[in-house]
Amino acid sequence: MDRAGFATELWEGNGHPVLFAERRASTPQARTVLIYGHYDVQPVDPLELWESPPFEPTVRNGEVFARGAQDNKGQCFYSVAAVSAIVAMSQEIPLNIKFVVEGEEECGSANLHKLVQTYADRLRADYVLAVDLGYHSKLKPGVTLGTRGIGTFTVKFRGATSDLHSGTHGGVVINPNHALVKVLSSLRDDDGTINVPGFYDGISPLPDDVHERLNFEFDAAAFASETGAKPLGGERRFSPVERAWTRPTLEINGIGGGYTGEGFKTVIPAVATAKLSCRLVADQDPIRVVRLVKEEIVRRAPEGIDVIFPESDQAGHPVQCNPRSWAVRATHRAYEEVLGREVGYIMVGGSIPILAELTQVSGGELAMVGLGLGSDNMHAPNEHFGLDRFRQGFLIVGRIIELLAKSQA
Amino acid sequence: MDRAGFATELWEGNGHPVLFAERRASTPQARTVLIYGHYDVQPVDPLELWESPPFEPTVRNGEVFARGAQDNKGQCFYSVAAVSAIVAMSQEIPLNIKFVVEGEEECGSANLHKLVQTYADRLRADYVLAVDLGYHSKLKPGVTLGTRGIGTFTVKFRGATSDLHSGTHGGVVINPNHALVKVLSSLRDDDGTINVPGFYDGISPLPDDVHERLNFEFDAAAFASETGAKPLGGERRFSPVERAWTRPTLEINGIGGGYTGEGFKTVIPAVATAKLSCRLVADQDPIRVVRLVKEEIVRRAPEGIDVIFPESDQAGHPVQCNPRSWAVRATHRAYEEVLGREVGYIMVGGSIPILAELTQVSGGELAMVGLGLGSDNMHAPNEHFGLDRFRQGFLIVGRIIELLAKSQA
Repeated sequence: MDRAGFATELWEGNGHPVLFAERRASTPQARTVLIYGHYDVQPVDPLELWESPPFEPTVRNGEVFARGAQDNKGQCFYSVAAVSAIVAMSQEIPLNIKFVVEGEEECGSANLHKLVQTYADRLRADYVLAVDLGYHSKLKPGVTLGTRGIGTFTVKFRGATSDLHSGTHGGVVINPNHALVKVLSSLRDDDGTINVPGFYDGISPLPDDVHERLNFEFDAAAFASETGAKPLGGERRFSPVERAWTRPTLEINGIGGGYTGEGFKTVIPAVATAKLSCRLVADQDPIRVVRLVKEEIVRRAPEGIDVIFPESDQAGHPVQCNPRSWAVRATHRAYEEVLGREVGYIMVGGSIPILAELTQVSGGELAMVGLGLGSDNMHAPNEHFGLDRFRQGFLIVGRIIELLAKSQA
Repeated sequence: MDRAGFATELWEGNGHPVLFAERRASTPQARTVLIYGHYDVQPVDPLELWESPPFEPTVRNGEVFARGAQDNKGQCFYSVAAVSAIVAMSQEIPLNIKFVVEGEEECGSANLHKLVQTYADRLRADYVLAVDLGYHSKLKPGVTLGTRGIGTFTVKFRGATSDLHSGTHGGVVINPNHALVKVLSSLRDDDGTINVPGFYDGISPLPDDVHERLNFEFDAAAFASETGAKPLGGERRFSPVERAWTRPTLEINGIGGGYTGEGFKTVIPAVATAKLSCRLVADQDPIRVVRLVKEEIVRRAPEGIDVIFPESDQAGHPVQCNPRSWAVRATHRAYEEVLGREVGYIMVGGSIPILAELTQVSGGELAMVGLGLGSDNMHAPNEHFGLDRFRQGFLIVGRIIELLAKSQA
């Protein structure tokens, strides 16, 4: 970025530092684009399921296999490459370009959360490009119009002060594993409805101009080949795509208590742990929702169990783009030109925790960019990203910059 | 044992070998005692909770801290030491002494299960001493009259072929963690009753001559200081001691699915796992009970979840001693003489999987011996056994041998 004429700096804070880079146009009336990405990745375990080491990128069948290949190092890479190429080709771009690349997207963006307030002036922009998204499918690509929000927390159920023998104490002490499965099970009804009072508050239908652009058709064959699973999770009364884009969730992302290794250990664990996340939509407030779920867990935990919330929570608001904005229209046009086919609109079930706040602080129009596919094993073993998509991403980001540098069409 | 004049041999099989040792009396009409113990131990994790390394015995406050200090290497040690001492003191004991020390007590005794049939003739005995028990408390010691049986199994719930992103797929795919907590939760009612049809078949009250010797008083203070927990597990309509000694259980000894490490991983795991055990009483058949629970889990698993039972089960029948037998009376007398106080009778909630079969094959009277305490952290971090109890065990086993060598009183 130095070579491309950017002034770079690291914003330190209490966590992983944030890379901020800026290149000012010589025309004083130039507009500003702020490009967002992140350099942190998800944990790699279970490591034994990786076919090549997660931090040694390996190309197989035209795909780069590595943790972060898609999410989000790969997409950062083509964004920086595109901007560098434009700078190399034409020293004079009538657009101020800023990058903000954080290191805590996967764990709630706590550091950037504080830094956006400290550096609010530096983050002012007319357009925000969040290059951390997907495009649905190669045959039916789409530009993303919204993400779900997220709230996460960890809960521990403690019974005894130490693990106990399940012969001596079985049937006498309360087993935290049983208490935990009972309480977690009660949080969702059999039809998938989340059984926490107030959980659904703040949900409203999509705006008409978003809804009319979206295609809610479910590609059962693609889903089956991607996941090997049946689309039977969540709220039964909504279709799979409605559930992924427009409905909240409560998921047990991790549960653990006692011995689950090879063989058997006849133990009653002192502690059982669960990690839960809620995906949120519309005006659901992640901090409020996490508080409601926690309160309900405490209320339903049986006598004899201490309920502990040992880690700090993560929270990010849902985000929706304005499909009539120049940022989104330029993005859509760039996709159609580069991909050479009709491009629709999509939403995604995932979350970018800082995006709502970053957009608000910048004062700009948000557009979402990216070429991820559901089959990329993002967050899972054997994450990968195609060489074809590195090229497409490079061209799309370049074309968006060109369009944003022009007056609006 | 060689030095004490025993002929020793290893019985190989498909698992850990069994040590068999035999010392014949010169008098042909001598009776035979068979002493049972085991050299295998429970897994040591969570390793970080041990205050000294589990396989480096360390003495603190008069207690030996090590995995197996009590269960069962420590108790094997004083048994062998006692017999060796008797042999050293008097070359002529009118009793044939056999030891059978196995290596799979903690995982179901599969190898010995087969070997008891192969070596049935060698295992013939008039008395069987199972030196793998406890004595309740130092102030109110008791001789054990029965153990619960056990059946264990592992179950896996599989959804997708690989871990999935809980943003992209949350609310769409079925989450194996949710399916597992729902099914496991359903196996026990709120009052602790196990909700599996047929589970309670075969349960009958204790025989009168056992029941009348037992004291079902619950020592709440000892329980609290030992466990730090409340006695609120199991079936509510029975008292804590009744539950531990005379009622069956269904415990989740381990549960695991997804990410439970530090931080957060927004994953929907492909697989969730649970390890379950049932403690059984009276004439409950462990193989039948495990089959019933498994069938119920399969029946209740939701569509879209594959239920897999990946490991071999463990099973052991409940055992009850005859309190009027010479084996039990001699044992009780030895306890009172060595401990110098009144000794009662107890039962234990734990299991020794091979004991029912070993007793039956031997044709002998069973007595149970041991000086374990509930506070020994058996099966848990920081297992320990007192130097005072090494001495008591040495004297008790020696005295039982002396008494059994005499005619019955």
